[in-house]
Amino acid sequence: MNDITKTIRAMWEENASLQDIRAYLLQFHPYEIAAAIAELPEELRDELYGVFTSKEIAEIVAYVEPEQAADFLEDVANRQVAGVIKEMSADDATDILEHFEDDKRQAVINLLDRETRDDIETLAAYEENEAGSIMSTEFIAIESGKDVKDLMREIVRQAPEADTINTIFVVDAHGHLLGTLDLKKVIVARSPRTVDEIMNPNFRAKNVRDDIEDVIKTIRDYDIDALPLLEDGVLKGIITGDDAMDTFVEEAEEDYARLGGLTESEELFESTFSSVKKRLPWLLALLVMNVFVTFMIIAFDFLFTVGSLTVLAFFQPVILNMAGNSGTQTLAITIQKITKDTLESKGDIAKHLGREAAHGLTLGIAFGLLAFAFSALFLTLDHNPQSFRIAFVVAFSLVVSLTVANFAGAFIPVLFTKLKIDPATASGPFITTVIDIVSLLIYFALATALLYSA
Amino acid sequence: MNDITKTIRAMWEENASLQDIRAYLLQFHPYEIAAAIAELPEELRDELYGVFTSKEIAEIVAYVEPEQAADFLEDVANRQVAGVIKEMSADDATDILEHFEDDKRQAVINLLDRETRDDIETLAAYEENEAGSIMSTEFIAIESGKDVKDLMREIVRQAPEADTINTIFVVDAHGHLLGTLDLKKVIVARSPRTVDEIMNPNFRAKNVRDDIEDVIKTIRDYDIDALPLLEDGVLKGIITGDDAMDTFVEEAEEDYARLGGLTESEELFESTFSSVKKRLPWLLALLVMNVFVTFMIIAFDFLFTVGSLTVLAFFQPVILNMAGNSGTQTLAITIQKITKDTLESKGDIAKHLGREAAHGLTLGIAFGLLAFAFSALFLTLDHNPQSFRIAFVVAFSLVVSLTVANFAGAFIPVLFTKLKIDPATASGPFITTVIDIVSLLIYFALATALLYSA
Repeated sequence: MNDITKTIRAMWEENASLQDIRAYLLQFHPYEIAAAIAELPEELRDELYGVFTSKEIAEIVAYVEPEQAADFLEDVANRQVAGVIKEMSADDATDILEHFEDDKRQAVINLLDRETRDDIETLAAYEENEAGSIMSTEFIAIESGKDVKDLMREIVRQAPEADTINTIFVVDAHGHLLGTLDLKKVIVARSPRTVDEIMNPNFRAKNVRDDIEDVIKTIRDYDIDALPLLEDGVLKGIITGDDAMDTFVEEAEEDYARLGGLTESEELFESTFSSVKKRLPWLLALLVMNVFVTFMIIAFDFLFTVGSLTVLAFFQPVILNMAGNSGTQTLAITIQKITKDTLESKGDIAKHLGREAAHGLTLGIAFGLLAFAFSALFLTLDHNPQSFRIAFVVAFSLVVSLTVANFAGAFIPVLFTKLKIDPATASGPFITTVIDIVSLLIYFALATALLYSA
Repeated sequence: MNDITKTIRAMWEENASLQDIRAYLLQFHPYEIAAAIAELPEELRDELYGVFTSKEIAEIVAYVEPEQAADFLEDVANRQVAGVIKEMSADDATDILEHFEDDKRQAVINLLDRETRDDIETLAAYEENEAGSIMSTEFIAIESGKDVKDLMREIVRQAPEADTINTIFVVDAHGHLLGTLDLKKVIVARSPRTVDEIMNPNFRAKNVRDDIEDVIKTIRDYDIDALPLLEDGVLKGIITGDDAMDTFVEEAEEDYARLGGLTESEELFESTFSSVKKRLPWLLALLVMNVFVTFMIIAFDFLFTVGSLTVLAFFQPVILNMAGNSGTQTLAITIQKITKDTLESKGDIAKHLGREAAHGLTLGIAFGLLAFAFSALFLTLDHNPQSFRIAFVVAFSLVVSLTVANFAGAFIPVLFTKLKIDPATASGPFITTVIDIVSLLIYFALATALLYSA
């Protein structure tokens, strides 16, 4: 519990007025207020909302994730929520509304003024993966032909509301985008001069329906401050570098969670039940796959009936773990390459698969030699009659398993991408189990062929 | 190979002049030029540098990673490299210089003018984890007492060089920071008015020696455009939101790579040898640990001599995989929490460890029941004389292993952090192997106690 929360609790227990608590809180930065409020008992939190203005609440919830913001506002009267929503930018408001229950969302939307409602409904109409769904409509636009003096006046007027003032957009009478203006250039420009003279007509723009990932990649690659989104050439909204970064970080966190075998990233203050729920799907899928592994081992149980071959069980974890780990390394690298869009052409993909198989073979030979030396030594000391043959099976299984593992770690996520499945779904534990099955098959088949008949 | 690269190669083969190739390239955005150049043969690339101006090269290399930029400039004459360095911001230049061989670096630095050299040496003097090492010294500062009109003039003069114009810093005659100015406020302010009247004296600032991670967290939490870095109250530099984000993304990519068992993130165009080198350390460490696992299984080999107990080997992978996966899930979550600085107080840590052990126990009981039902059924059908006892050992091992695995996945990274070791070092494969060892011990010990004596 942080110090601000402690002080408020103490004030509350001493029956301080809500107005006093509000005054105390307002000394702090909205981020600190949000963090303190998150740890207050719900009862006190709900009472506090009554004494904050809608604008203050809007500022505070801007510093928490939309999911938590929706949680904060759940028990607040719909009329006040509508007031808060009106104070927020349309994209943030849409994010929060999406996390409300259907009833609550509709009730709040009905209480909004026409303009705010239209803005929100426009954004909500885009598909989740379309750039339009995360765009901001608060940008500064100026009509072609105006003088830089008019422009400065326009910037002064619109600055308080605008999401960015670093880029200004020049449009024609119908809203078609003609060029972009860098604020730095505007500032050094002297009147009389039209905005058309100093604008950049070779701007980069995307369509509102373009894929978000594609748009974010453009913003990151070209280091763009604010990318315009068009529909039939008409400027509809912008995506700022900040927003692009936030979305990029969210995606990266999801990939990370999936590599760890989670369905999605866990929030900071999540209940045990909801955490377990997120972890369960993969674990259940793995249990089923592992039952399959068990049956496969059972199918080869005749191997273990031969006295000198029970040692095969000892080397089994080495092969499974080495192949699983090496495959996971390849998986991590492949997903990073896919995220960075470097595996698009067929040539690149073929090169990547070849490279990874080569890595697997190289590593397999290195570890195979080590494993041969170690197991031959151990088996000879143990007076096993088939020491060199068994050592060869172990070593050769490592070579084949590592090659296959690295190929699978590279191929499966690429295949998933082609099938339009998020490649991060091929999470670490999943691919490890697939590799387990293949490696065991190789190991036991080799043992049967080279040892059992002997 | 992209289209621009193809065209250049074709021009090159048709003996087009380097000037023509340059003119063709300069139509494109520096990002596109950088991407095209990366795929050219080194010979042609080196020749091309001769026809670009230092400023053009500086713009191009600004769009690639410092490591690759250093690689690009490796064969360029030192005098030209010095020219390029002079055109870059001091922090980017320092990053690139750090990737040169010692000889080359010193030679280039000796060719720089005094001012550029001083700037670079100041930055290079900070430790790698200190905020000063990534700060920018190109900010706009104005002296206290000036009028907003002077300020606008100052902004116009310094804008082309400055890293950000959204935040302007007000300092006294000795360079002490007195307040920050939001450009939006400056634009709407009317003269006569001093900068002191409109500045924000309650700004957030950090020390040049503060830890980078700490500084980035502040920038992200408070959504700061440019955070001032001070030394004894004197403004030394700034860290922009963009730079903070870039660093944050780099760290996240490293954590991701480590969870996948890589020592560091791989570059896009990396040689097989260098890739294998990055993957080898973990795999070698794991091989050694796995040899240890093998010996442990051998230590319990008396169990397998009992006919009805050979089935123990069949269930071994289920227990190892479930515990390993669940532990990796916990590891991923714990590292995310550490990265977000939510595990700082002892209370938070104790709560986290307790929660994770509880998750493990919950999941363990759920999967234990499933495993019991499945294995009891299978063993009974197989006419195993000890079916229920064995099923109990399997189930109970799952309960204990999952609890221990989740506790370890939460505890080890926290312990590493306390010992000042990067917690991401407790990578997925490492923790999986630790959990393997513990789970096997539990499984075999239980089997020995409950089955072998029977």
